Amino acid sequence: MEQFSPILPVLADEDLDPRAAAVFEDIRATRQTDFINNFWRVLAHDPANLERTWGELKELMGEGTSLDPLVKELIYVAVSTVNNCTYCVRSHTAAARAKGASDQQLAEMQSIVAAANKTNRLAIGLQVPVDEAFS
Amino acid sequence: MEQFSPILPVLADEDLDPRAAAVFEDIRATRQTDFINNFWRVLAHDPANLERTWGELKELMGEGTSLDPLVKELIYVAVSTVNNCTYCVRSHTAAARAKGASDQQLAEMQSIVAAANKTNRLAIGLQVPVDEAFS
Amino acid sequence: MEQFSPILPVLADEDLDPRAAAVFEDIRATRQTDFINNFWRVLAHDPANLERTWGELKELMGEGTSLDPLVKELIYVAVSTVNNCTYCVRSHTAAARAKGASDQQLAEMQSIVAAANKTNRLAIGLQVPVDEAFS
Amino acid sequence: MEQFSPILPVLADEDLDPRAAAVFEDIRATRQTDFINNFWRVLAHDPANLERTWGELKELMGEGTSLDPLVKELIYVAVSTVNNCTYCVRSHTAAARAKGASDQQLAEMQSIVAAANKTNRLAIGLQVPVDEAFS
Amino acid sequence: MEQFSPILPVLADEDLDPRAAAVFEDIRATRQTDFINNFWRVLAHDPANLERTWGELKELMGEGTSLDPLVKELIYVAVSTVNNCTYCVRSHTAAARAKGASDQQLAEMQSIVAAANKTNRLAIGLQVPVDEAFS
Amino acid sequence: MEQFSPILPVLADEDLDPRAAAVFEDIRATRQTDFINNFWRVLAHDPANLERTWGELKELMGEGTSLDPLVKELIYVAVSTVNNCTYCVRSHTAAARAKGASDQQLAEMQSIVAAANKTNRLAIGLQVPVDEAFS
Repeated sequence: MEQFSPILPVLADEDLDPRAAAVFEDIRATRQTDFINNFWRVLAHDPANLERTWGELKELMGEGTSLDPLVKELIYVAVSTVNNCTYCVRSHTAAARAKGASDQQLAEMQSIVAAANKTNRLAIGLQVPVDEAFS
Repeated sequence: MEQFSPILPVLADEDLDPRAAAVFEDIRATRQTDFINNFWRVLAHDPANLERTWGELKELMGEGTSLDPLVKELIYVAVSTVNNCTYCVRSHTAAARAKGASDQQLAEMQSIVAAANKTNRLAIGLQVPVDEAFS
Repeated sequence: MEQFSPILPVLADEDLDPRAAAVFEDIRATRQTDFINNFWRVLAHDPANLERTWGELKELMGEGTSLDPLVKELIYVAVSTVNNCTYCVRSHTAAARAKGASDQQLAEMQSIVAAANKTNRLAIGLQVPVDEAFS
Repeated sequence: MEQFSPILPVLADEDLDPRAAAVFEDIRATRQTDFINNFWRVLAHDPANLERTWGELKELMGEGTSLDPLVKELIYVAVSTVNNCTYCVRSHTAAARAKGASDQQLAEMQSIVAAANKTNRLAIGLQVPVDEAFS
Repeated sequence: MEQFSPILPVLADEDLDPRAAAVFEDIRATRQTDFINNFWRVLAHDPANLERTWGELKELMGEGTSLDPLVKELIYVAVSTVNNCTYCVRSHTAAARAKGASDQQLAEMQSIVAAANKTNRLAIGLQVPVDEAFS
Repeated sequence: MEQFSPILPVLADEDLDPRAAAVFEDIRATRQTDFINNFWRVLAHDPANLERTWGELKELMGEGTSLDPLVKELIYVAVSTVNNCTYCVRSHTAAARAKGASDQQLAEMQSIVAAANKTNRLAIGLQVPVDEAFS
């Protein structure tokens, strides 16, 4: 589909500086796929940010933490929905599906995002005071 | 703690109209506690909205759906954080704890919310085009 | 109620520069009250912005336009709720009441804000394509 | 116009389960048109959410409440603008026009949304303390 | 690229009323270019808002104030990124480049926007109390 | 000032685990002050996130990059204002002042944030199509 051009070009593998190339290698090894999506290919213009951001996601989103990887991916999609980031909703919904999310789970998660947005505004708009129990 | 007054007063049980009183009874039965928090006590000025909103949360947030109740509560806190709703962050964090969330799980969830907010802005600010694979 | 201090101090009438003083005079004449709320008293540190902002609101929010002053005030509260601006929700709700808004109208407006926030997120989260009829 | 595919497919009438079909029938009867827009056709994957959401909008947005239907539609567009929901801005602007909104009223409403966004940020950024009168 | 139509049509020079035409003349003189971008061409339907908005930007964004024009343009892009305004991110990034912004500066600014979004959510989500020193 | 308690307690120096203590030492050395603000004291419950977040800010916000440290701090305040993070607006405004920001520069930056929020909503609400020149 035709889209606007990014602010900085999508970099091909042969255009990477060595620090960025090393990150791409780690992404491929971690995800066990050759595919590197555009987010990383644009971020690669700033290798320090690429390293930090990939390092952060690798540390946070994998196995072996207190939350299940699928749960974490659903939280990621929920946040991306509230922030209205098309790229992120689409890429992290795909990631959630790859981790086993069913259509029903995705629809249910979005129902909760919608309900929370509704009650968030009611609490703000009506200026509900925090209960002693929650203070 | 001293707080601003709400837009519509916090209603005591004796001030409720019958429709609102019936909802409060259902909240108490469902949650198995006598405590009704201020959100519902302010919303009670509009019984139709109270019925709809409680009905929606009761249907969405309980057992027996495709997502675990604790997972759903964590998603609720995540959304409330992005929307910056103090009341909601505090009340739903309390609810998550009541459903078994550990400090570590809460901290981890907030790390993911933070990371998603970061990458959401990078995707938007750099205008990253959606990959064919996600389109 | 005890509050944090503003970034720039709340200016008393005797601390105003002449441009700011002239704006305050116009606010008082337009609103037919001596009371000047803190928003203008902080903004008065930047007389150019004070002039522009007061001029804009005076032009937009009064009588004689295609929308009723109360309707405009309700729209103002709705926007302030979505942006979660406590100061603005409170001051513009007070303004709406001064223009005749009933408790019921305020509650109804907030119900619509809440419902719109809910369906906004569903449209975004489910990536609903725009219908031919709306394109 | 070419667009990204939704997270869950747009359902045709023949693909609906009976609960969703009943909602569609009610939408058609209420709106007195055969046209069902994509929002409902995607939401139809989750009949419970479809029922709740349609029920809520039907109850809120019609005649016979304390606010005029056109006013309510303008508030809906205002909220959708702040949330940056393209689908919602476009579909509810169309709805506002169908209820009689003129170009001038739409432009005026957007001017107020813009002005409110401006003053919301000033109140937040300058940390203006809430006046005693609004507390 | 094919796009949705605006809510009000993009006006050609020959369709302007005299007040709007005078603003366009001033934009051309100030920017020393014949090009008038779509934002102004749509806003021209509401000459009062066009005058106010152009007047505000002309006063704020030029030379001779306490902040450098390039710095001001970077702040503008940062805000537009948080608000997820595609039109604004793209047009103000172009303006920043015209004022001398390098790719590195744009990437660095976006890194800061991303980091701020991250820590903003942590402060909100963890409900960090304001230090005495900042109160 | 009395405030709500944080989700996880503010940690004193003697309560830190060794990884968190090492970060605090680095913060003190970098900032050349003994003062550690509450943000880090709450984040210290999650030493991995503390390390990542401090490392990111240290790398981004100091001297020796393509943008001036004061400019970067102003961008940080601008983003925090749009996100309505009271803690962040207050702490980063203090940081901007420590780096030399005058009252006039802070007021001017907030005027730009406000104007950008205004034009962002107009571009979104009127659905202004992106010009060929910016695509």
